[in-house]
Amino acid sequence: MSSEENLVIPTYDDVIAAHERIKPYIHETPILTSQRLNEQTGAELFFKCENLQKAAAFKVRGASNAVFGLTDEEAKIGVATHSSGNHALSLSYAAGQRGIPVTVVMPRTAPQAKKDAVIGYGGTIVECEPSTSSREATFAEVVAQSGADFVHPYNDPRVIAGQATCSKEMLSQVENLDAVIAPIGGGGMISGTCLTISNMAPNVKIYAAEPLNADDAARSFKAGHIIADDAPNTVADGLKVPLKDLTWHFVSNHVTDILTATEEEIVDAMKLVWKTMKIVIEPSSAVPLATILKNPEIFKGKRVGVIITGGNVDLDKLPWLNN
Amino acid sequence: MSSEENLVIPTYDDVIAAHERIKPYIHETPILTSQRLNEQTGAELFFKCENLQKAAAFKVRGASNAVFGLTDEEAKIGVATHSSGNHALSLSYAAGQRGIPVTVVMPRTAPQAKKDAVIGYGGTIVECEPSTSSREATFAEVVAQSGADFVHPYNDPRVIAGQATCSKEMLSQVENLDAVIAPIGGGGMISGTCLTISNMAPNVKIYAAEPLNADDAARSFKAGHIIADDAPNTVADGLKVPLKDLTWHFVSNHVTDILTATEEEIVDAMKLVWKTMKIVIEPSSAVPLATILKNPEIFKGKRVGVIITGGNVDLDKLPWLNN
Repeated sequence: MSSEENLVIPTYDDVIAAHERIKPYIHETPILTSQRLNEQTGAELFFKCENLQKAAAFKVRGASNAVFGLTDEEAKIGVATHSSGNHALSLSYAAGQRGIPVTVVMPRTAPQAKKDAVIGYGGTIVECEPSTSSREATFAEVVAQSGADFVHPYNDPRVIAGQATCSKEMLSQVENLDAVIAPIGGGGMISGTCLTISNMAPNVKIYAAEPLNADDAARSFKAGHIIADDAPNTVADGLKVPLKDLTWHFVSNHVTDILTATEEEIVDAMKLVWKTMKIVIEPSSAVPLATILKNPEIFKGKRVGVIITGGNVDLDKLPWLNN
Repeated sequence: MSSEENLVIPTYDDVIAAHERIKPYIHETPILTSQRLNEQTGAELFFKCENLQKAAAFKVRGASNAVFGLTDEEAKIGVATHSSGNHALSLSYAAGQRGIPVTVVMPRTAPQAKKDAVIGYGGTIVECEPSTSSREATFAEVVAQSGADFVHPYNDPRVIAGQATCSKEMLSQVENLDAVIAPIGGGGMISGTCLTISNMAPNVKIYAAEPLNADDAARSFKAGHIIADDAPNTVADGLKVPLKDLTWHFVSNHVTDILTATEEEIVDAMKLVWKTMKIVIEPSSAVPLATILKNPEIFKGKRVGVIITGGNVDLDKLPWLNN
């Protein structure tokens, strides 16, 4: 309880402010529907396509809110983060838009494509060894030397308020939703979803979808406290990280349930979306549909918002071709 | 000249009627843009995404116009065509929507996925040998027995008027275009584009894009008469068929130029669209971008509508993984 008291919980006013702030730098992403997937699931699915977002990830929302919320003095010094995934690209994109320095600590083993993307957006990479201790030591050094503002990938109120603009858009695009479902890793997108939905549409149920191979959030939810796994292994590479205090606040207070899917179910759902909807989504984005297909009784006859979180995939290594 | 006189040339009134007729059965597909591709080409590109159309192909427009333009008497007897591609799926979809019989003559060697899709939409397949003589004999038999209305994949005024609704939508979605570019095979989409643009925006230039390996339209354009190749070989499998008298009428009267691209350029452009825009497009749809990248001097500084014609791809056999 005491730790909860020290948290800075973002409010819906922060979401409104975030949306005004980031609008020039993000897309209002489209909602796509699929008659075939509706027939297959028995539900009415509304896909919010953040794979069509700038940098192909919803994380541009939170990163942009953090970057454009800095004072000019703060901005001059720049921002920093550690991430080998979409947050690294997104923070680099946002910093590039404002024209300020951005440093990303990445393991030297990270895919060259991700490194190239960060550099392409104007970011500086500092490499570390692929271990938590090396990453933390390297990152501490970067911040100590530069004084850069640390933008955490999800446990940051500015980031959560930014991610919350996704559901805010969705509520203006689709009427009378019964439920919303999004993937859960560290919980940034789900927390933003909770923030918006609990304020603007409190009757809409919120589901989180997680790989069974990285089901620490589902186990946390049942246990009533955060359980963090060390380096789980899943094709949904965006969902390996654990909940933190701020995202746990939202998950524990507002989520109806956390559903899980196997690796095979995730890959099948991913391929199904590519095939029927003709959009490129990354494995993490397929977890919600995988859980809907697995639990038709929950969603049948319901109008469900499904958040497609990103589209960054190595086109030379598709998971259904590696099996 | 005498054959031209016997042609039934569709008018823009036919396009308006077609659009009213087919609206309930098609999507108004979105326009997507890409900052990265604009930077790479020096042009402002507006992608009209018919890969997100019903049956994932613009051909649903023409097929629906033919099917829903039939009288109830005619409709009862049904429709038929020969095609192993998107027209087969699209005619099956449209006939399914009206609830009338549809027969498709397909070579027995056609991909099972395509056959399954036709059957999934309620179509009947009659198989022939993979030769022109067998196809024509088999098709003549089907029509003689059933009396079904033959809906040609492109050399049919109803089909061209239907395809013309794509550019009609685009003109309402994007202002002040300088040029439009679309792939050319038999010329159905380009003819529809010519029909709309020449009537509604006559200053907009119309370019066609063709695989160098199947450049019969480009050679026809230069020669001033139709040249038909026998079974050209290209990854852009939708663009192998030759021009016919009706599509030649539009191409010869309204197209500014026909540009070509090599197989490698087409596959590179296809992968580039998947990677940067996060949409699944088929090889034929990548030919326009391939020619824009190859001819930057033509398109630099221009606002260009680029028609993405379809998204039907075998996800287990991607062309950049077969090289």
